[in-house]
Amino acid sequence: MPELYLALMHYPVVNKNGVTIASAVTNLDLHDIARVSKTYGIRSFYVVTPLNDQQVFVERLVSHWKTGAGSTYNPSRKEALNLVNIKASLDDVILDINSKELKTVVTSARKNDHPLSFNTLRNQISNNIPHLLMFGTAWGLEKGFIQEADYILDPIMGTSGYNHLSVRSAVSITLDRLLGNHL
Amino acid sequence: MPELYLALMHYPVVNKNGVTIASAVTNLDLHDIARVSKTYGIRSFYVVTPLNDQQVFVERLVSHWKTGAGSTYNPSRKEALNLVNIKASLDDVILDINSKELKTVVTSARKNDHPLSFNTLRNQISNNIPHLLMFGTAWGLEKGFIQEADYILDPIMGTSGYNHLSVRSAVSITLDRLLGNHL
Repeated sequence: MPELYLALMHYPVVNKNGVTIASAVTNLDLHDIARVSKTYGIRSFYVVTPLNDQQVFVERLVSHWKTGAGSTYNPSRKEALNLVNIKASLDDVILDINSKELKTVVTSARKNDHPLSFNTLRNQISNNIPHLLMFGTAWGLEKGFIQEADYILDPIMGTSGYNHLSVRSAVSITLDRLLGNHL
Repeated sequence: MPELYLALMHYPVVNKNGVTIASAVTNLDLHDIARVSKTYGIRSFYVVTPLNDQQVFVERLVSHWKTGAGSTYNPSRKEALNLVNIKASLDDVILDINSKELKTVVTSARKNDHPLSFNTLRNQISNNIPHLLMFGTAWGLEKGFIQEADYILDPIMGTSGYNHLSVRSAVSITLDRLLGNHL
């Protein structure tokens, strides 16, 4: 099981106009990202939001599938949503992981000056170095936040020049590139 | 631009109890799959449903982003949703593609006796053989429908034994494996 953790950040992210906001949690983000995280053996899927009402919303939604009616209706969904861990900030996530060797990696759709390639990160993970992989919601992570991470992962470039994947697609492709067995 | 077409099938699929049904169209399937299709240069994204009210729903939704208020609010979404093509059946899709060399490929989460590997399909696509890649909604494509396709693509196996990806994740990973530039 790789020492890989995932965080879906709802703050600090930017809106359409580049203003820093706390975004609302999307139900299907939790389901899709929990399922793909479970598929690739991620240790924990942190849902990060400083907003108390949003934390309560996530807690209620996850409870439905973990212990409520959803847990018997669809047990495989329960297994996935068991990975969800609600935190108020990146600092709280890092405290929870509690590893001195932890490296933080942000993902961004934009090219950057000090990129980390998928292959390099794949190698670091296979060498048992713990990593926290962070994805932004809304129009992406705030610039200052991105600069503070240990690494910025290469953007996923398709073949057409179009560069507007959903965060659900971006997480899926990233985990498959980093951990998948490609035959 | 690869000769690759994609179809999201809402019939014939099975429900939780294995009964053949026509599933309802999910709004976010259209957005996520259109965006990843545009990213990887797919020719057309067919949304296949025999239900007239569902066809009308898709038409209305896509119109909002193609020519309605959504087209100016988010022009990149318009580019992606331009790929959506509503059809009533697989036969109608094949008529629309209108290629004698077309090969049909179904995807399934289950292992099968005559699998096609991702690498083999990647090579066939790069040799300009036209392919239609079909994904099921609900609990997956009907068994009889699967058997009629030219090929059954290998399931996406993660690393944990857990095998319950969303169709949005499955499409994203499949297109990246078949068409992505992995560095």
